[in-house]
This record gives sequence, C-alpha cells and structure tokens, in this order.
Amino acid sequence: MSFSAADSSMMARALQLAERGLWTTSPNPRVGCVLVRDGQIVGDGWHEKAGEPHAEVHALRTAGERARGATAYVTLEPCSHHGRTPPCAEALIAAGVSRVVAAMEDPNPLVAGRGLALLRAAGIETASGLLENEARELNLGFVSRMTRGRPWLRLKVAASLDGKTALNNGSSQWITGPDARRDGHRWRARACAILTGIGTVRDDDPSLTVRDVATPRQPLRVIVDSRLETPPTAKILAGGGVLVAAAVEAPERAAALRAAGAEIVLLANAQGKVDLAALLQELGRRGINELHVEAGHKLNGSLLREGLVDEFLFYLAPCLIGDDAAGLFSLPALSALADKRSLQIVDLRQVGPDIRLLARTLNGR
Amino acid sequence: MSFSAADSSMMARALQLAERGLWTTSPNPRVGCVLVRDGQIVGDGWHEKAGEPHAEVHALRTAGERARGATAYVTLEPCSHHGRTPPCAEALIAAGVSRVVAAMEDPNPLVAGRGLALLRAAGIETASGLLENEARELNLGFVSRMTRGRPWLRLKVAASLDGKTALNNGSSQWITGPDARRDGHRWRARACAILTGIGTVRDDDPSLTVRDVATPRQPLRVIVDSRLETPPTAKILAGGGVLVAAAVEAPERAAALRAAGAEIVLLANAQGKVDLAALLQELGRRGINELHVEAGHKLNGSLLREGLVDEFLFYLAPCLIGDDAAGLFSLPALSALADKRSLQIVDLRQVGPDIRLLARTLNGR
Repeated sequence: MSFSAADSSMMARALQLAERGLWTTSPNPRVGCVLVRDGQIVGDGWHEKAGEPHAEVHALRTAGERARGATAYVTLEPCSHHGRTPPCAEALIAAGVSRVVAAMEDPNPLVAGRGLALLRAAGIETASGLLENEARELNLGFVSRMTRGRPWLRLKVAASLDGKTALNNGSSQWITGPDARRDGHRWRARACAILTGIGTVRDDDPSLTVRDVATPRQPLRVIVDSRLETPPTAKILAGGGVLVAAAVEAPERAAALRAAGAEIVLLANAQGKVDLAALLQELGRRGINELHVEAGHKLNGSLLREGLVDEFLFYLAPCLIGDDAAGLFSLPALSALADKRSLQIVDLRQVGPDIRLLARTLNGR
Repeated sequence: MSFSAADSSMMARALQLAERGLWTTSPNPRVGCVLVRDGQIVGDGWHEKAGEPHAEVHALRTAGERARGATAYVTLEPCSHHGRTPPCAEALIAAGVSRVVAAMEDPNPLVAGRGLALLRAAGIETASGLLENEARELNLGFVSRMTRGRPWLRLKVAASLDGKTALNNGSSQWITGPDARRDGHRWRARACAILTGIGTVRDDDPSLTVRDVATPRQPLRVIVDSRLETPPTAKILAGGGVLVAAAVEAPERAAALRAAGAEIVLLANAQGKVDLAALLQELGRRGINELHVEAGHKLNGSLLREGLVDEFLFYLAPCLIGDDAAGLFSLPALSALADKRSLQIVDLRQVGPDIRLLARTLNGR
C-alpha cells in the first residue's frame, strides 16, 4: 500500500479532528473524517459523543453534493453495522465517494475489514494503514476493549525523585506542583473511569473528579474495597457515578453505600479479595476504554503483580524525602535484578518544575 | 557594561576552547582565550594542564605580532600573580593588546579584579561579565574551592523509576544500560576525585576508575571508611591514587592499607565517624575542584543531612523493582512534606533507554 504526501497530510488533519473527541466519545472511539475532491477539503467532521452522528456523517453533511467523486480519509474503518446510527459505509456509498482511506481497520477481530469490504463491493477504492500507529494511540483504550475485553490501564503516580509518595504519617498531598496537578486532570478527563483503593479513600478522602478542565463528562469512579469499608460520607461518593468492587456481601454497609448513591459489584477471588482481572473485564463490559488509576502502593503493587498495568504516568517532583517514607509499589522481593519489571519510556517532559514520564510495560509483563 | 554580538560570538568560541580542558586542567580552572583584530581571529588557545602555559599564552604565541591592538577574550580574568607560570596580565600588556574582555573575574575574593586592574593601569580597556553564567558553570568546582574552600559535590545515583538502587541481597549492578554507564564515566572523568563509602567497597568492590573515555588522568579515589575496614585486596586500591578517610587509628589495618598503596587521613567527629565537612575541606586543600560521589544510601544520606551535596546526577532506568528493595537516601523521617528537600532540575534528557537528570539543591539545603 503506498500513500502520497497529500494523503498523509489529509489523514493528519482527520486525526486532529478525531482528537477533539478525546474527552467525550466514550464508549465509542475517537474518529475524524476529511473529504477531499480535486485537492480541496470539501467536508470534514468528528465524532463528538455516543448516539450522535459519526465523523463520516458530519463530513458528508458539510460536503453535500461535493462528496461525489471525493476521497474520504477516516481515522478508523467506517462501520458496517446498524448501531445507534446507520452504518457509515452505506452513507459513503450513497454519497458517491470514489475512494476511502482508513488509518486502521476496526480493532474488533470479529468485524475488522467488513466496512472496507462493503465499500469495495460497491466499487469504491479502499486502502488502510495510513498513520496507523497514530490512530491506534488515539484509541488505545477502545482497541484494548475490543481485542482484550478490558480497558487500557494507565496508572498514575506522583513521587519525589527518590520514589516516595507519602510520609509514614500518611501525609501525601502536594508532592507535585500546580502545573503537574492540572496536567493530571487532563489525563483523568480522557479516561472513562478512575480507579482507586479503599486505602486512598480512607487516608486522603479524594473526590477524584475532573477539575481544571472544561469537560461535560465526569468519568465513572471505581473503588476497590474488598470489605465495603468506604465511609458513606466519603467525598468520592458525592454526585454519584461510583462503582464499589467488593469481595464480601456485608448487607448493612452495602445498604449504606447504596443509599449514598454507589453501585456495588461482588467480585471475590479465592483469597477473599477483589478479583482485579475480573473487575477489569466487568469494566470492559461496561464500555470503559481507558481506565485511570490513582491508588496507593498496595493496590498499585497488586495491579502490577497481576500484569494488569499497561502504562505508567509518572510525575516526579524535584525533591527528596528519604527511605523512611512510603514507596510506590508493594512487590515481593526480587532475588535477581534480571527479574525487575522493565518499561519503555514513550514520553518525557517537564511540566512546570516537575517531570512527567509516560512508560509502558514490555511484553505484557 | 554592554557587549556586541561579535563580542558574544568570540567569547562563546573561547568557552568552547576552555571546555577542551574539561578532563585535564585540575587543580587549575578550564580557560580559553581568543585574540581578535579587525574582526579576524588572530590567535587562540586553551589551558591544558597545570604547569603548562595558560590559555592567554597559547593565544599570544599563535598571534605573534598580530596581537598588537587586538581584543583578548578570556573566559576567566587573566592572572596577576607569579605561579608556576608568569602572570598572563603582564604577557597581554607586553603583547600590546588594546582591550581585554573577561567572562568572569577571578572567583577568589582575595585576588578578584587584580588582573583586570593591572591591565587598566597599563591603559588597556577592560570589561567583564560576558557569558558569565556559562563561564561559572564550566568552572563550578574551581569557583566552589576558591569561595568555600571545598569542592563542588556532585552525587551520582542510578535507580529504577521507583527509586530503588539495589535488592535486599545487595545485588546492585547493571540497573541502567550501557549508554548511561558510559555517560557516567564522562562525569567521573571531569571530576578531580571520586568518593565512595566502605559499604560500596565491601558490597560491590568497584574500581571507580574512568573507563570508556580517553583521558590521560585518573581522578583521586576517596573512601569514607571510619574503622579502616577496606580490604587490602579491594579493586579500588589497584594502581594507587587512593585516599582513605578514617576515624580510628587501627595501626595494623592502616599499615596493610598503606602497603597496598593507600594514603590515610584521620578525620574523626564527635560520634566517632568520619567528619565529612572536614574531609571536604581537606579535599579542597588538596586542589579538588569537582568531587564525584558514588556511594550507598547511608553515605548519600549523611552527605545530604550535612548539607554537603551541591548537585545530583540521577540516572533513572525504566524499570520497577518494588518497595522491598534498597532506596537512595537514608534520611530521618519527616513529619511534614514541607520539610522535603527541594531541588531544581537543571538538565533532563534520555540517555539510551534511561533518563538522566541533573538537579541542584535550593538555598544551600
């Protein structure tokens, strides 16, 4: 498959449009579309939120008759099924476009390629794979849910340069500066859900809402709370939209939490703790694409041990706290350094006086 | 004082030349000189090593008669005293230069300004302060020794992203990759001395020599070893050039270490440990400008607690080891996060797969 510089430029524009849906499209993917005829953009659009028109429909509407004979650049293969809206492949055929270039195929292996096949059957030239990496990055949560049935898990930690998150007395807030905290809210905003543990709820009483960012949508908040010990007065419960994952029934405490607006799911493992892998599958079923974790070293360690962490969002503050303070990950002692968990740094920058680092686990470790 | 763009450009060239002496000039400062007449460079030079000609002399030699009426750009105020070589100020006067621009004055408060005064008394126009920050950075060790009587202390640590340096079983080598280790040798090479503790000597048996870098000079190696427990077979002793700082006499062990080529200094504090502040003064007296520390969390913590660390050279490897492993700094527990030791990041980059971070202590904490 070969693409021209003009193709790349138009797909880059479609990706920029898709990104406008970063905070709103869930559970749908972020998608952008650009229609080009004779080298001119005749229509473009992006998907804003579930239930509303897909990117292709917006683009076709703005193009009108000019869509005939045009090339459509879409960041994701046009859908071929009737969902809440009619299939985009049919709309493109009806509009008379002559070529469709997709950045990537539908990540769901059961449907991948069907949209493009439908177009080809109608005599339309198709191609895919242009700026595919960029398109996958933009929808890594959606891709994860479609291919693995669970969200992309991004674990955020804020620590000192010597890897400390809190003092022994539990004091842990304000390690990083206001710029890093504001940046953190943008990562919360793009997630479909924010997950924490009962320890953090008890020690810090966070609300875990998105602030500092103009978003119409608050992510679901999820608490891993095996014994249902979340106080019904916890700030995180305010405003609803909270799921508590428990391992015991505890009817009285459950009733109090339900009265405070929380939903409870029972997902016990053999050790009487919350089955974290099962919780992620449950969140996948609920349409959670990106899961943002802000928890303490115990839950962090458990997620890491079970191989459920896809990405780490590190904020490192330029300060030292000392070995006596609480660390980042409770993990069993290693017997050899070769057993360390290796990551790959995918982004590194300064945010105000702090450092932000995005790293991914290698080989699914 | 106002300087032209041409002035800045020539001083930048002089600084580049000065930097060629990065690994060799100690205990002297790194100095470069450029002679310019009618917009043309007519001579330049840099100081290579103690006892050999200063930068100005090299530049005057290459310029010959063309130095007459020229402007001399020097990264440090020309010397006014007879040391191992005659004063450069006199050489510049004798050569007939008409203007001397210095990046900075001599940092020794007892002599600062004398070289420039000598030039002015001879009717030469003088100025200083051009690219002064850059010049200070290049000689921060020399400046520290002249103004505080002790070296600039740069503490190197290599850790995982969660701030761990070693496993509980002591295994600590190879956390970072080959690029970071090679980079580390360049920092060793520019230091006049490398300091470590008896714990590191015992656990890792490092040689702490400069390798991977073509330098004619090995820094002095210094061991903080209160009870003289360095094994006479330790690799660090090979080849000589080792100073052991002790707090007890222990004549037998001392004799064995001397037989292995080490020099011993007794510097006990009231607690029967090595007096670290006194050791730094001793190293200052011995002409140590930059002191490079590679030690374990105990000695790191002690240096930090005593306020002796000027700069941290962090190498962070993209991996996680877990809370059970050894950390970076033994420090007393803090009661409030406001008591954390704040640093300022002065450089951040990736070195191979690892991160390198240069940070400085704020307000002498």
